Amino acid sequence: MRFALETSRVDPSLCRPMNLLPGFRDFYPEDCARRNYILSRWREVARRYGCVEYDGPVLEPIDLYKKKSGGELLGQLFDFVDKGERHVAMRPEMTPTLARMVAARERDFKKPLKWFCVPQFFRYEKQQRGRLREFYQLNCDIIGEPSPAADAELIAIVIDTLRAFGLTKEDFVIRVSDRTAWTQFAMARGVGEEQVPDFLNVIDKLERTPREEISKRLAPFSIPIESVDAFLSNPAAEAAGLKTLTEDLAARGLDGFVELDLTIVRGLAYYTGFVFEVFDRRKKERALAGGGRYDKLLSLMSDNKVDLPALGFGMGDVVLANLIQDTPAAKAQMDAWMARNRAVDLYAIIAKEEQRPAALFYIQQLREIGYRVDYPLAPVKIGKQFQTAEQLGASLAIVFGDEWPQVKVKDLAKREEQLVPATELLALLERILPRA
Amino acid sequence: MRFALETSRVDPSLCRPMNLLPGFRDFYPEDCARRNYILSRWREVARRYGCVEYDGPVLEPIDLYKKKSGGELLGQLFDFVDKGERHVAMRPEMTPTLARMVAARERDFKKPLKWFCVPQFFRYEKQQRGRLREFYQLNCDIIGEPSPAADAELIAIVIDTLRAFGLTKEDFVIRVSDRTAWTQFAMARGVGEEQVPDFLNVIDKLERTPREEISKRLAPFSIPIESVDAFLSNPAAEAAGLKTLTEDLAARGLDGFVELDLTIVRGLAYYTGFVFEVFDRRKKERALAGGGRYDKLLSLMSDNKVDLPALGFGMGDVVLANLIQDTPAAKAQMDAWMARNRAVDLYAIIAKEEQRPAALFYIQQLREIGYRVDYPLAPVKIGKQFQTAEQLGASLAIVFGDEWPQVKVKDLAKREEQLVPATELLALLERILPRA
Repeated sequence: MRFALETSRVDPSLCRPMNLLPGFRDFYPEDCARRNYILSRWREVARRYGCVEYDGPVLEPIDLYKKKSGGELLGQLFDFVDKGERHVAMRPEMTPTLARMVAARERDFKKPLKWFCVPQFFRYEKQQRGRLREFYQLNCDIIGEPSPAADAELIAIVIDTLRAFGLTKEDFVIRVSDRTAWTQFAMARGVGEEQVPDFLNVIDKLERTPREEISKRLAPFSIPIESVDAFLSNPAAEAAGLKTLTEDLAARGLDGFVELDLTIVRGLAYYTGFVFEVFDRRKKERALAGGGRYDKLLSLMSDNKVDLPALGFGMGDVVLANLIQDTPAAKAQMDAWMARNRAVDLYAIIAKEEQRPAALFYIQQLREIGYRVDYPLAPVKIGKQFQTAEQLGASLAIVFGDEWPQVKVKDLAKREEQLVPATELLALLERILPRA
Repeated sequence: MRFALETSRVDPSLCRPMNLLPGFRDFYPEDCARRNYILSRWREVARRYGCVEYDGPVLEPIDLYKKKSGGELLGQLFDFVDKGERHVAMRPEMTPTLARMVAARERDFKKPLKWFCVPQFFRYEKQQRGRLREFYQLNCDIIGEPSPAADAELIAIVIDTLRAFGLTKEDFVIRVSDRTAWTQFAMARGVGEEQVPDFLNVIDKLERTPREEISKRLAPFSIPIESVDAFLSNPAAEAAGLKTLTEDLAARGLDGFVELDLTIVRGLAYYTGFVFEVFDRRKKERALAGGGRYDKLLSLMSDNKVDLPALGFGMGDVVLANLIQDTPAAKAQMDAWMARNRAVDLYAIIAKEEQRPAALFYIQQLREIGYRVDYPLAPVKIGKQFQTAEQLGASLAIVFGDEWPQVKVKDLAKREEQLVPATELLALLERILPRA
């Protein structure tokens, strides 16, 4: 499903000093505001769920990733040998860092840990729609709780995060699967524990492989394709955990966002229980988020120092931004946020240069109580100053001129003005203008 | 002045997968909150000054830095050749990226630009107090305004940023100098324009060099050391811009934070006018911030495409955090912020498991209106649940138990409780508990 927009290697001579690297982004003020909108909503929802923020280094020893990330990610690393002869890599994901941090200080924290972060990741991949070489992710993890209630809580975070952007169940769906259910299914039919990963690999390819090929691949496990079909259409019969999960989400009124889809296994070998992927309903984008339970990973990463059940998800900013852009209600909500997030609340018009010191005095007062204020650094015609005030999104202009020691306060939307003694300016503004 | 804490190269075999790289930081939740305190204050003050946020890529072509950064920074790069044969570097500073971005889209923005960012930088240096291999900086730049009023505005941002952390003029000082004044001084005494940089180099070393050595170095310029002395003690006579700068800051009531100190020239060749450095009064730390005017740099960086006067400063997080930690009032303010920034507002106590669905229903409602809420994922004894509620900093515990369909709302500080029908819970909380 990956369609390449950039397939050939770039000639290094094309990489001029004034050019951006392919797959990397400049964030001009408007782009930066959009990025911050996503990051701040992520933080806001994670915190509502009682999650606390952490972060780790952008650069880690490459061995940290060799231990877990496995084939695909290792081939996509921005890695190098530093000036101290250390083989290092820019982080392509967070889980190894999280495992390292938790293993080092596990006893300092009450379980379960509910930790989130909003790191930037780096992967040398082909640029495509929804995929760059750097991107931000919301990562949430719950560590130390084996109950399916934790899986429900995690999935609820995913749902509410997306809803916080104005997206609804008409826009996205969470497809949930259960590796434990498949494991039980296989073992109940005589598949040995060590063969289970191979069996899961066959299931992972179910949707993209012809039926006779699947039958052939199932043969070594002595499982007829018909019993796989039967399980897919009535999984709850064998997967008790799914019932708990669904009931928990239903109690929150969030069950409408979730669909059971046992064809999802997720490639990564370290998942052990529920796994899920989030897709846009119109199927225009890559996965919005994905995650699941990885109960054995902390033990593996820490050389058995720490053995805690764990689960988590990642949600990237690039696909999410595309979906917001293409969903009118979500786009309108973002635009409204951008408009509220104006550059300034107030603009000081310096109508006479001799009033500049007085203007500076009041600008300082206004900034100190929290208003966003700008003014002309050099003498500019009054008409132009008003133009700038409007361009910067100021609600009010304050004119320092002939009326001194009074100032004119002009509402730029209503085109109304009033005169007020400068000494009463702050009190007036506190009444009429909320701070950003 | 650099005293090495880590001088020897690290044996790569010591770089275990579970170790952090030297000079890099893990941000456990408490560290992360302290980092976010600094970053959010930075953003807040910059925005009050009408500055808008931008950002650029963490990775850039190394040629971008070769063009400007010069000797020292080039020797400290985390640079490498990527999988596409591009020689790239992790950003050690922002100005080259800013120049690239402004040059590319200069016409889209009204001048002056007031732009800020809070990037993380990477420099391979020896670790010392106040110096790591990664750090955050507040960068503010004003582009397109030659007037000293812009220099005053920039210095005011520095002052108010530090004041926002509870630091006062007893804690820090901004030492301002003027390269233009020195240039005029030298040229008025017959020094040719092309010799001025060499002359400035002598001045740069003034404080650290014996007088006879200075005299010897001044000889080629035919300037007696006595006339340098005279200028240092009465610079305003020759430096008209300094008067404007000082008067502007005085109008804001900020002149007490600034000292004229013409011995500061700042090493970097690209500064052209006012330059400044910020130090803690107790002289325990490295510089807190530094900056100045660099009117020719954009033109140099853009191959003359864009020729705009510009000025800016950088303020790092590591030295600032040390100073906050060591200044009781600033420390108290940070601690108060951390306490307000509690993990949760509310904790739901599930006293009877059969009330779990009801609890989940109300937890969801409470989170949707913005409260931070946590609850036990698995059955836990009631006493332990109350303990967790207090550890997470909850103001109120809501007990779902025998009283259902009423719930008990318990104020954890005052140890008071009241019974309320669950259907009236939201209305009650909106009255008694402000959201974080």
